[in-house]
Amino acid sequence: MAASKSSTNQFSELRLLVDERLRNVFTARQPAILYEPIQYVLDGGGKRIRPILLILSCQAVGGVVEECLDAALAVELLHNFTLVHDDIMDGDDTRRGRPSVHKKWDTDTALLAGDGLVALAYQSLFRTKSTKIDEIAGIFTDGIVEICEGQALDREFEARRDVTIDEYLVMIGKKTASLLTISAKIGALLGGGSASEVHALAEFARNLGRAFQIQDDLLDITSTEEVTGKPFGSDVIRKKQTYLLVHALTHGDDAARRRLDEILDSEIAKTHVHEVKTIFEKNGSLAAAETAVHQYLSAAQRHLDELPATPAKDDLASFLAYLSNRKA
Amino acid sequence: MAASKSSTNQFSELRLLVDERLRNVFTARQPAILYEPIQYVLDGGGKRIRPILLILSCQAVGGVVEECLDAALAVELLHNFTLVHDDIMDGDDTRRGRPSVHKKWDTDTALLAGDGLVALAYQSLFRTKSTKIDEIAGIFTDGIVEICEGQALDREFEARRDVTIDEYLVMIGKKTASLLTISAKIGALLGGGSASEVHALAEFARNLGRAFQIQDDLLDITSTEEVTGKPFGSDVIRKKQTYLLVHALTHGDDAARRRLDEILDSEIAKTHVHEVKTIFEKNGSLAAAETAVHQYLSAAQRHLDELPATPAKDDLASFLAYLSNRKA
Repeated sequence: MAASKSSTNQFSELRLLVDERLRNVFTARQPAILYEPIQYVLDGGGKRIRPILLILSCQAVGGVVEECLDAALAVELLHNFTLVHDDIMDGDDTRRGRPSVHKKWDTDTALLAGDGLVALAYQSLFRTKSTKIDEIAGIFTDGIVEICEGQALDREFEARRDVTIDEYLVMIGKKTASLLTISAKIGALLGGGSASEVHALAEFARNLGRAFQIQDDLLDITSTEEVTGKPFGSDVIRKKQTYLLVHALTHGDDAARRRLDEILDSEIAKTHVHEVKTIFEKNGSLAAAETAVHQYLSAAQRHLDELPATPAKDDLASFLAYLSNRKA
Repeated sequence: MAASKSSTNQFSELRLLVDERLRNVFTARQPAILYEPIQYVLDGGGKRIRPILLILSCQAVGGVVEECLDAALAVELLHNFTLVHDDIMDGDDTRRGRPSVHKKWDTDTALLAGDGLVALAYQSLFRTKSTKIDEIAGIFTDGIVEICEGQALDREFEARRDVTIDEYLVMIGKKTASLLTISAKIGALLGGGSASEVHALAEFARNLGRAFQIQDDLLDITSTEEVTGKPFGSDVIRKKQTYLLVHALTHGDDAARRRLDEILDSEIAKTHVHEVKTIFEKNGSLAAAETAVHQYLSAAQRHLDELPATPAKDDLASFLAYLSNRKA
């Protein structure tokens, strides 16, 4: 399952292809107050996970990249819409090591840039030539509704202390996993996959998405700002209901839960982050999150195993390995 | 061109039909933090101009309401998305006589509600059964891009004093007229209209849209808060580049332009509104705006005249008369 050299090259190539197709694409468009921030966020890089997943899913069922590139760009544009609007809502002033759009410009500019990105995502999607475009547009749209619901749940949970692990899983299923799921599904449909292949790739992506989000929760307190481009412990400081916090609040011992309650009742400072991390460690929450990541990655692998052997299948296995080893 | 009794009833019936189809449609959906504000804004009423225009355009070329109702609801959902996000950007705390979403809840809630409305608009659009759905989805999407561009231009203009009438017309063409244009176009396509019928209805709507926006600019200082549900002179106070202001700044006498510059350099209070109104009156800006409204309504009528005689054509003529006489 280790990434072979050729597979690693395939990711880099696809990433470069996506980067190249997004570079300067809106630079000359007017009004600048709309398109400059849009181009800025697209130039910010990122791992391009969703378009790569879409393209590999297309290839894994026999399709070629030309058939699905516009759809791949569409999911990347959609992803960037969620980043811009989420950064406003979460008050995240940096993104990928640079000022986020609402910080570099202002909230209104970021709001409108996000709106524009949704419409541009649909424009890219509709450039796709396929007899299945209606089904695909429906999947894409249902995905946006799910993402909004997931973001809403995330916000709703911030005011609560009694969120269960199951509720948390529903939330990340919508907020994070749904965009990966629709990426794989759309790629598989465009590649001409059978119903069972589409299903296998969708479930592969859904489990990958869950693992990915719980990893994100872990990286918040196990990585560094230099590596992630985000402030260390920012989820803790913002009282986000991460896997770790939900686990500690529902499975921690009485002392841990009381102390977490106290901390959550106060203004959380950077100095609290290490204490919270220690609570997570002592109460098995860190270990539980790591186990959950491992389980979801295994489930993803099982769904991948349902596919016939192809080079793209190997690439998806390497993609899984790459994501499971990520540090940012 | 005066509204006949039957035509008047047709508007009321269509408006009631749209109201009825939007009532409680998202009430039971979770999470409430997303769907409650969405339902709230849909319950706020409004004239339902866009869905009515879409349905009448469909009927005017021989279609029936059942074929286009989901698309009609889609343009109304899209319109409400623009209202919610524009109210955030414009700092408008009331809408249709009630607190706007960002005031009743908060900015983040309104931001997310608007995002949800876009996706729900597409879901409604895709419920439409038509062989032309791909073309229609493209028109719908291009319309959203135009609306975002129009809103961006509107914001860009706020920092300028040298906006020309032509630039203003481009801006309202995108910000206001495009949604009416796509409504008519989609209705005509769904009704099976010929290329020339689709074009005539689109141009009818485009001119109606321009007239409608300039009317809005006029009503800001000629109507009252009780009638419009918006604060008297709010465009003036917010230094919006309306037809009136653009005209006075480019066509007013030297004294008027100097005084407007002074006022625009200051914090504008309610007391300034009457002075500004007087400047508009003395410099022919009010009259010019009224002339422009009249010219666009005449152009709309000419495009309508290209259509064959049908009851729906009469309804559209009455619709035009109804809009030209509106007070809010």
